[in-house]
Amino acid sequence: MSIDSNSVKALTFDVFGTVVDWRSSIIRAGRALGRAKGLDIDWEDFADAWRGLYQPAMSRVRSGEMHWTKLDDLHRMSLEQLLEGFNISGLNEAEIDDFNRAWHRLDPWPDSVAGLERLKRKYILVTLSNGNVALLVNMAKRAGLPWDAILGAEVSRHYKPQPESYLSTAEYLDLKPNQCLMVAAHNDDLIAASSHGFRTAFVARPTEYGPDQVDNLKPARSFDVVARDLLDLADQLQC
Amino acid sequence: MSIDSNSVKALTFDVFGTVVDWRSSIIRAGRALGRAKGLDIDWEDFADAWRGLYQPAMSRVRSGEMHWTKLDDLHRMSLEQLLEGFNISGLNEAEIDDFNRAWHRLDPWPDSVAGLERLKRKYILVTLSNGNVALLVNMAKRAGLPWDAILGAEVSRHYKPQPESYLSTAEYLDLKPNQCLMVAAHNDDLIAASSHGFRTAFVARPTEYGPDQVDNLKPARSFDVVARDLLDLADQLQC
Repeated sequence: MSIDSNSVKALTFDVFGTVVDWRSSIIRAGRALGRAKGLDIDWEDFADAWRGLYQPAMSRVRSGEMHWTKLDDLHRMSLEQLLEGFNISGLNEAEIDDFNRAWHRLDPWPDSVAGLERLKRKYILVTLSNGNVALLVNMAKRAGLPWDAILGAEVSRHYKPQPESYLSTAEYLDLKPNQCLMVAAHNDDLIAASSHGFRTAFVARPTEYGPDQVDNLKPARSFDVVARDLLDLADQLQC
Repeated sequence: MSIDSNSVKALTFDVFGTVVDWRSSIIRAGRALGRAKGLDIDWEDFADAWRGLYQPAMSRVRSGEMHWTKLDDLHRMSLEQLLEGFNISGLNEAEIDDFNRAWHRLDPWPDSVAGLERLKRKYILVTLSNGNVALLVNMAKRAGLPWDAILGAEVSRHYKPQPESYLSTAEYLDLKPNQCLMVAAHNDDLIAASSHGFRTAFVARPTEYGPDQVDNLKPARSFDVVARDLLDLADQLQC
């Protein structure tokens, strides 16, 4: 570990993939919907396709092609596209809305809650996620994620990796970027955070994208901390 | 109680006076500073004068005379005015800044933490305060206030009682105003929230302004809930 853990005041967390297992959770929600509605769909493919539309949707907002649109609404636009692409019909509005909110009901990785509870004793824990506030609040209530504040894209009105999403999160906390430790399972997020002065912690989530994951298996460069999971992060930060 | 407690999803809290006892806490901080620096000041008068400049300072932002300025900075402007008015000199920048942050270190009322912990089992608990995010996060960490999210003036960029502060808080939570119960010790806050469709809970804090308080001793009109304190609120909401 290459930082003085006492100079850090806040841990800013990527959430999708780093704290919660979105892929298994979306597959589970899809399978439940499929059973209820008699749909014969490969829900692993469906989950990957839904997540595959995530970056392109945010890119339209980042570029200014679309005005600010929260992630729930981007997920919904992508979902409508996929329902057509997968030939799924016969869902009413309430069923579509409920399936879209599967993103509010993602399960944490097994170490997440216990790890966050230990880290919370010493640090301010905040989200620095592209998820919107309602999504992250509902997820936290269900999963027991003990955030001190819900920050990130929606209150910054900028999606990561735009600089404003990182810098305004530090500003809301009245901290300097180097008092914030960005925790993520994704190299690009950490590299962007680092370029704005944040400290960085890589947490390996080698099955986030399923058994055949090829990216983000290892840190792409030197980060301040490299941890196996959030319990290991708590150990390394002496929590 | 005139509401179905199950139709409410979130409790939105005024904080200064409703959850924390700002006056005793500021007096305590003033006395500590006075002892350390040999100052002979009536700190009760000082605390009342500091709070007295709160509404005028926010009015300058509400009116557009000043661009958006967070409460820490308004407190600091008021403090500099009062240091001069009370003939206090000899404080260095770090001492002035630390005293200004006494607002981050306010003590909860005796029932607040236990009441919030019970309410949190059933409801989303968020701040709907004029305090800025860093102030409210630091206060919550120190006092043990278990908020699910820190919302209100700073993320809405509008001070209460402007409509946007209430309405954008409900929007961030993806709730309708009538799914939100505003909890406050101040009639004007509840009347404003009610005018935008929020449910309302009056919590009596008859010594917020000291032993001679005359305002807000009782609800000025009919609210959905009237509670003696946050434990009584938890009882009435069946938490």
